[in-house]
Amino acid sequence: MSSNFHQPQSNVDDDLARRYSDIRALSEMLAAPLSAEDQCIQSMPDASPVKWHLAHTTWFFETLLLIPHASSYQPFDPRYHYLFNSYYESLGARHPRPERGLITRPSSDQVIEYRRHVDDAMARLLDGGRTLNIDWLCELGLQHEQQHQELILTDIKHALSCNPLLPEYSETALEPASAAPLLSWRDYAGGIYWIGSADGGFAFDNEQPRHRVLLQPFRLASRLVTCREFLRFIEDDGYRRPEFWLSDGWSFVQSTGIGAPHYWIHDSDRWQIFRLNGLQPLNPDEPVVHVSFYEADAYARWSGRRLPTEFEWEAAAVNEPLRGKFLNPACLHPTVAADGETQFYGDAWEWTRSAYEPYPGYRPWEGLASEYNGKFMCSQMVLRGGSCATPAGHIRPGYRNFFPPSARWQFSGIRLAEDA
Amino acid sequence: MSSNFHQPQSNVDDDLARRYSDIRALSEMLAAPLSAEDQCIQSMPDASPVKWHLAHTTWFFETLLLIPHASSYQPFDPRYHYLFNSYYESLGARHPRPERGLITRPSSDQVIEYRRHVDDAMARLLDGGRTLNIDWLCELGLQHEQQHQELILTDIKHALSCNPLLPEYSETALEPASAAPLLSWRDYAGGIYWIGSADGGFAFDNEQPRHRVLLQPFRLASRLVTCREFLRFIEDDGYRRPEFWLSDGWSFVQSTGIGAPHYWIHDSDRWQIFRLNGLQPLNPDEPVVHVSFYEADAYARWSGRRLPTEFEWEAAAVNEPLRGKFLNPACLHPTVAADGETQFYGDAWEWTRSAYEPYPGYRPWEGLASEYNGKFMCSQMVLRGGSCATPAGHIRPGYRNFFPPSARWQFSGIRLAEDA
Amino acid sequence: MSSNFHQPQSNVDDDLARRYSDIRALSEMLAAPLSAEDQCIQSMPDASPVKWHLAHTTWFFETLLLIPHASSYQPFDPRYHYLFNSYYESLGARHPRPERGLITRPSSDQVIEYRRHVDDAMARLLDGGRTLNIDWLCELGLQHEQQHQELILTDIKHALSCNPLLPEYSETALEPASAAPLLSWRDYAGGIYWIGSADGGFAFDNEQPRHRVLLQPFRLASRLVTCREFLRFIEDDGYRRPEFWLSDGWSFVQSTGIGAPHYWIHDSDRWQIFRLNGLQPLNPDEPVVHVSFYEADAYARWSGRRLPTEFEWEAAAVNEPLRGKFLNPACLHPTVAADGETQFYGDAWEWTRSAYEPYPGYRPWEGLASEYNGKFMCSQMVLRGGSCATPAGHIRPGYRNFFPPSARWQFSGIRLAEDA
Amino acid sequence: MSSNFHQPQSNVDDDLARRYSDIRALSEMLAAPLSAEDQCIQSMPDASPVKWHLAHTTWFFETLLLIPHASSYQPFDPRYHYLFNSYYESLGARHPRPERGLITRPSSDQVIEYRRHVDDAMARLLDGGRTLNIDWLCELGLQHEQQHQELILTDIKHALSCNPLLPEYSETALEPASAAPLLSWRDYAGGIYWIGSADGGFAFDNEQPRHRVLLQPFRLASRLVTCREFLRFIEDDGYRRPEFWLSDGWSFVQSTGIGAPHYWIHDSDRWQIFRLNGLQPLNPDEPVVHVSFYEADAYARWSGRRLPTEFEWEAAAVNEPLRGKFLNPACLHPTVAADGETQFYGDAWEWTRSAYEPYPGYRPWEGLASEYNGKFMCSQMVLRGGSCATPAGHIRPGYRNFFPPSARWQFSGIRLAEDA
Repeated sequence: MSSNFHQPQSNVDDDLARRYSDIRALSEMLAAPLSAEDQCIQSMPDASPVKWHLAHTTWFFETLLLIPHASSYQPFDPRYHYLFNSYYESLGARHPRPERGLITRPSSDQVIEYRRHVDDAMARLLDGGRTLNIDWLCELGLQHEQQHQELILTDIKHALSCNPLLPEYSETALEPASAAPLLSWRDYAGGIYWIGSADGGFAFDNEQPRHRVLLQPFRLASRLVTCREFLRFIEDDGYRRPEFWLSDGWSFVQSTGIGAPHYWIHDSDRWQIFRLNGLQPLNPDEPVVHVSFYEADAYARWSGRRLPTEFEWEAAAVNEPLRGKFLNPACLHPTVAADGETQFYGDAWEWTRSAYEPYPGYRPWEGLASEYNGKFMCSQMVLRGGSCATPAGHIRPGYRNFFPPSARWQFSGIRLAEDA
Repeated sequence: MSSNFHQPQSNVDDDLARRYSDIRALSEMLAAPLSAEDQCIQSMPDASPVKWHLAHTTWFFETLLLIPHASSYQPFDPRYHYLFNSYYESLGARHPRPERGLITRPSSDQVIEYRRHVDDAMARLLDGGRTLNIDWLCELGLQHEQQHQELILTDIKHALSCNPLLPEYSETALEPASAAPLLSWRDYAGGIYWIGSADGGFAFDNEQPRHRVLLQPFRLASRLVTCREFLRFIEDDGYRRPEFWLSDGWSFVQSTGIGAPHYWIHDSDRWQIFRLNGLQPLNPDEPVVHVSFYEADAYARWSGRRLPTEFEWEAAAVNEPLRGKFLNPACLHPTVAADGETQFYGDAWEWTRSAYEPYPGYRPWEGLASEYNGKFMCSQMVLRGGSCATPAGHIRPGYRNFFPPSARWQFSGIRLAEDA
Repeated sequence: MSSNFHQPQSNVDDDLARRYSDIRALSEMLAAPLSAEDQCIQSMPDASPVKWHLAHTTWFFETLLLIPHASSYQPFDPRYHYLFNSYYESLGARHPRPERGLITRPSSDQVIEYRRHVDDAMARLLDGGRTLNIDWLCELGLQHEQQHQELILTDIKHALSCNPLLPEYSETALEPASAAPLLSWRDYAGGIYWIGSADGGFAFDNEQPRHRVLLQPFRLASRLVTCREFLRFIEDDGYRRPEFWLSDGWSFVQSTGIGAPHYWIHDSDRWQIFRLNGLQPLNPDEPVVHVSFYEADAYARWSGRRLPTEFEWEAAAVNEPLRGKFLNPACLHPTVAADGETQFYGDAWEWTRSAYEPYPGYRPWEGLASEYNGKFMCSQMVLRGGSCATPAGHIRPGYRNFFPPSARWQFSGIRLAEDA
Repeated sequence: MSSNFHQPQSNVDDDLARRYSDIRALSEMLAAPLSAEDQCIQSMPDASPVKWHLAHTTWFFETLLLIPHASSYQPFDPRYHYLFNSYYESLGARHPRPERGLITRPSSDQVIEYRRHVDDAMARLLDGGRTLNIDWLCELGLQHEQQHQELILTDIKHALSCNPLLPEYSETALEPASAAPLLSWRDYAGGIYWIGSADGGFAFDNEQPRHRVLLQPFRLASRLVTCREFLRFIEDDGYRRPEFWLSDGWSFVQSTGIGAPHYWIHDSDRWQIFRLNGLQPLNPDEPVVHVSFYEADAYARWSGRRLPTEFEWEAAAVNEPLRGKFLNPACLHPTVAADGETQFYGDAWEWTRSAYEPYPGYRPWEGLASEYNGKFMCSQMVLRGGSCATPAGHIRPGYRNFFPPSARWQFSGIRLAEDA
C-alpha cells in the first residue's frame, strides 16, 4: 500500500481537535478530483450527491454540537437545516431524498464556505470548555463523517457509471498481478462467545450491549471469494437456476435481468470492471465485490456452503489483527490477498446471513442521536469488516454495517462458512 | 368452545386415512358458505381464491404422492399442473399469482370433482402398500392443507371486505361480553434453552434442527394486547408520531395513511370491526388483530416494552398447555381471555421481533418439498402460536409462521415482552 | 347470416315497449352461456364483469327514468346506486372501476332479480302516461344498453383469454372458407359535405350539430384490410421498424413487446386466433381486428397509404346501404367480405385518423346525460361503422365510437385511404 | 421593453452567417447566468439540462450539415452522437432521456468547446460552396436552436423551482403596475379560410400544405385571460367541481391534487408566483400562464365559453401585426396587456381545442428531418402564438406548437372563444 497517504489516526482521543481537522480534510480531499457538476448529481434515491455529503456531515456538527453547546454560534444559513437533514424525524421536515440531486444552490463553493464556518466554530468549541458530552458528540460527528466518506466514494462510483462515457473518478495505477492464495478452512469451536463492542473506545449503540451468544462449531474460509471463483458460478448458469436462490432473490434476478456483479461488463468475450479509476480488465484473483446479499447467498448455496452469521464472523474476527486494505486514494478497489492474509478487515464488506436486529437489552442513544441506528432494524442484512472505501481506524470487530438484501453499490463481498 | 364442531384429531398417525378424510372434508366445509362467485375472486396478489386453495391442495397430493407413488394414477387434467402450482420453481412454469382470480374454469363444481378424483386415488394408495415415505408425504400434504384452511378464511375475509356491501362469510352469534383479565408479567430466567421441534411428531424443516440458545432473563405479558389497550395508542396519536416507529414502518404509515388495525372502521364516533360474521361493534376486551409487524412494534415501543424474540416465546410457550381458541366455524374471531388464560396458542398469531432465519445446521427437505420453507428466509418476520383460524391440532410450540412486516390480513396480534 | 336469430328492430319508436323487452332480453341472452363465475370477473380496469354490465344498464333506467319519473317507484336496493354508477360525477361517489371484479354479491341471480324489478316498473311506466321526454330517455337507455351488449362480448372475450385453458364463450361453427375480393380504390370528390346525424331518429349528442366540412379529393379502399395483408406487414418486420410508427406507438410497441394483433397466437409455425368460439386457425381472408390505432396507423404508413379522417369516412359511408355483419350469436367474429361487399358497416370498427373532438357548436345534453359523451373528448381516436359485436340497428353513418389509441380489445380494424 | 437587448433578425436569409452567429450566441447568453451545476441538472423526464440543450443543438448542425456536407469535417467526439441525439430513431440508439441529468462529463466548458468546433466548421461551410439545400438545412438548424432556447428557459425554471431555496435565474426589475384592458369580443365571419404557412419563408412541415378550411362564425376574446380572472375560477372552487372538467382532466386534478396554475404558491393568505427572477407577488393583471390544457379547458367551460380551434385562431391571427412580448432577458415573464394590445403573439402560448393532427396532404420532410414533427401527431394539443420565452422572429401565424394536455411547464395561457 502506498505510504504517502496520511491516514487519520483512529481512537486517539487525546488530540480530538487534530483528529477533527484530519478527518474533515479527508472528506474534501475525496471531493477534490470532482468538478462542481460531478458533485451535484444523484444517480438513484439510495445514493446522494457528493456535495450533499459534504454539507450534511457539516450540518450534523452544527445541529448536534454547535447549536446546543456553542452559545454564540450563528448558523451559516438557517435554510440549510431543511436541506441537509437526512432522516431525523425529530428535527422536522426535510428535503425529499430523491431530489437531492436538484440542489445546484448552494454551490460547491458555498458548501465549502459552510464547512469553514462550522470548522471555525468547532475549533473554538474544542478549544474552550470541553465536556465529556461534547467530546463524545464530536467523536460521533467524526465517526458519522467517516461513514459518509465511504458513501462519497460508492455514490460517485455509481453516478459516474451511469454516464455512457464511463469517466474515471481518479487516475491511479493498477496493482501488479499476483495469484490469490489457495482457499483453506479454519475451524472454530462451539460454545459461548462474547459479542458486541466493549465500553471504552467509541462504538455505535447497535453494537451494544455486549452479551453472550451460544454458537455451534463452524468453519470459515481463509479469505474472500475471488472473481475467478465467482466466474465459475456464472459459467455454471448460476444466475439462471432458481434452486440456488432465495425466493426474493430469484424475483430480483428475474425482474432486473442481472447476470453478473454490478459494474461487471461483458464485452467481446471478455469481462471488464468499471472501477473508480475507469474501465479495467477483470482481475480474476481479486475479491468479488458489488454483489447483493441475494447473490452472495446464492453463490454460497451453489458452492455447497453458506454465509456466516454475524456472530460467527465476530467470534472469529475478534482475534484477527485490525489490519487490511482500507480507504487509500491510490487504490480505491479491493486487491488480491497476500499469502496468509485473511481479509477480515478492509477490501470488502462481508455479507452475513444475519438480519439486522437489536442485541438483547439494546437501547438507542438518547436525544437527537436516537434515530441513528435503531430505527433501521428491519428488512436489512448485516455486513461486517469494512472495505477498501472504509477509512482506516473506523472499523472494529463489533462494527455492524447493514443494507437491504438487494443493495449492490457498496463494496460488498463474500466469505464462505460451513457447519463443522 | 362450541362442541358441535368436530375437529380433526391431530398427530394420530395410526389412522391416517381417517385423518385424511377429516381434514379434506374441513376444507370443503369452509368453502360451503360461499357461492361459486365468492370462491373465484382474488382481492390482492398475496391472497388467493378459495377455489384455488381447494385445487392447489389437491394438486399437492397429486404431485407429491400420486404421480410418483401410485403407478396407475391418471391425472385428472394435465393442464391443472400449470394452473395450480403455487411457487415450486423445480416443477416448471406456472400461472402468474396475481391472475389466479381470473380462472373461472375449471368451475367450482369441476374443482370438487378434481378433489374426488384425487381423494379416491389417495384412498387406494393409503389402503395399499404404504411406506414410511408415503405416510410422511401424506402427513405433509395434510399439514399443507391445514395451512391453506387458515388462508381460505383470511383470504375470503379480505375479499369480502373489498365489497362495499361488507357481506358476511357466515352468520354466527357474537360471544357474550366479558372483561379481559388484568395484564400481569411473568418472569423467565436467563440461561440455555432448547429451541426447535424434536423428532417424533410432524414438524416442518424450518423448526429444525433442535438446538440450544442462550437467553437473557426476560418477562412476557400474561395475555395478548386487547383492543382497549391498543385504542389508547391510537388516541395518543400513536400512528402520527414517528418516534415509535421503525423507519420502514413510518414509511408504511405515511404511504398507506393507515390509522388503525385493518378491518377497523371508524363511523360516527364509534369503532366497528369487519369480521367473518359481518360488521360488528368493536369489543374492547378482545385481542387486537390484523396489525402489521410495524404496528405491533410501534405499539410495544409506545408502551415502553418490546416484542419478544421467537426464542423467548418458545422457551415460555413450551411449558404451556397446547390449548386455545382455534378454528371453529361457530366463532371465527379471537375472543376475550378467560381468567388465567394465557392465549399462547390460538386467538392470534403473535409477532416476534425475530427475522425469519435458518436455525444452525438447517437443511431444507430433499426433493420437491425443498422449496417449502427455506427459500423464504429473507425479509420476513416470525409469528408464533396459531390463531382462531388455525385448525386445532396443527400448532406446536416450535411452529414458525412468517410474513412480511407489512402483512395485516392474517389474524396477527401482540404479546408484550421486556428485559427482566 | 343465420336467420334463426331474432334481431331487435331498430328505430321503431311506435312500439317502444316491445323494443324495450327485445333489447333487454338480448343482454341476458348474451350472458346465458356464462357461469356465475364467468360473469363476475374483471380482467383489466378497462373491461367490466358481465354481471356489472347487466346491473349497470339496469341502474341506468332506474336512475334516469324510474326515480325521477315513476312516482311510486321503490329502488330495488339503494346501495346499488353506489355499486353500479359507472362514471357520473354528478351522481356522487361510486365503486372504484378497477374493483368491479370483486363484487360477488349481489350474485348473478340477484342481478337478474334486479333486472326484473326494473323491467316491471319500466313496463308500467311505458304503459302509463308517457311523455316525449320519457320516450327519449327510454330510447337513450336502450341505446346505452346496446353499447354495453357490445362490451359484454369484448370484455368477456378478454377475460376468457386470460385463462391459460383458453375456454370458449360459445361453441359455433366456423364459417366456410372463401377468398377475400381484390382490394380496389374508390374515388371521392373534394368539396363541402354535410357531416353529423340529422334530427329525427335517435343520435348521440356527439354526432351533432350537423355541419358542413370542406374535404380534399380522396380515395378509400373497397373493403377492410385482411389478415393476409396484415401478415405481410408482420413478415416485413413492421413491428420492429420505427419508421412506420408514431412516437407514442413505437413506445407502446417497445414497452409491451407486441408483434401481432391481440388474440393472435403463434404456435409451431402457424398463427391461431383466440375467438369467442375458442382457439381457431387464422383465416387469412377475414378482416384483421384487435389492432390498436397505433398498429392501424403503422400498417397504413407501411403500405404507403393512410387512415381516413372520420369526415372522409362519413362522406363515403352515408351513401352505403346500412347493412353488414352485426352481432349474431351464431358467429361472433368478422367474416370474409363477399364480392362487392364494402364492409362499411359491421365486421370491424374502423380506426380513423381523427382525434375525438367536439363538432362546431357542440353542446352536451342537459341533466344527467350531460356526462355521457362530451367529457371524453380528449386523447381518444374516432372509430366508425360498427362491428360484428354491434347490435343490428344500433349503428348510423354519423355514429362516432371512440377509444384511446392503445385500445386493442374491441373488434377494431383498418380501412385504407389516400389522397386523390 | 428594454431596448438594449439585441434581438436576432428573423427571416433575413441574405445574411445567413450573421444570423447563424447571432442565434448561436443567444443560446450561450441564456446559459450565462447559470453555474455549471445549474446547467447540468434535469428535474423531470420532459425537461432537459441546459448543457444538454447547448450540446444537442450543436449535434444537430454536426449531424445534418457537417457530416454529410463538409467533406473534411472531423467530429469533435464521436461518442457525442450517442449522448446528444434526442429522438431520431433512424440515427440509432441514444442516451435514455430521463438520464440526461447524470452527464457531468463532458463538462460545461467542454460543451462550449464543442460549440466552437462546430461553429468554426459551420462558418467555413457557409463561407464556401453553399447550396440551396445547405442553406435550408442551416435555417432548419437555427429554427431548431430557437425552439431549444425557449426550452432552456422553461426547463431551468422548472429545475430551479424544485430547489426549496427558490433561487432566481436572473435578477430583473418587476414591470410597473398597470391595469389590464377590459375584455371585449371580436367577431369573425364564417366561411372558407386558408390555413397553413405559404411557401416562401421558412415553415415546418407540420404547417403545410396550405389548404382551405370551412369555419362557422365565431368570436375571440380581445386579449389573454388574466390572473385576476383565473382567480375567480379558483375561488369559485373550479378545481373541485367535476362538471367543468374533461374526464382525463378531472383524473389529473384528483391524482395530482393541484388547485392553481403551476408556480403559484399560496402563502399566508396571498398568492405568489415563482418566476425566472424569483418568487414575486402575483400581479392579477398579467396573463395567467403555466396552465395545462385541462385547466384552460375547464376555465373556459366554467366561464361559459370555450377554447378556440387552431383554425379559428389562425384565421384571426393572420391579420394581426406580428408583434408582441417575445424572449427578452430583461423580463422573462408575460406582462399586462397595453390598451388595444391583443396579445396574439408573445406573452403566452395559447391552448387551442384542436388535437395535433396532420393537415390534408401532409408529408413529412425527407431524410433525417422526417422525424421532426410528424411522428408526434397523436395525443397532443396544438398551441399557437409564441410566448415571452419564444425568440423574436421565430413565430408565424401558421406556427403550430404542441404538447400533451397535462403539460404545465411551458408559458401556456388561455384565450377564450365562443360561437357567434
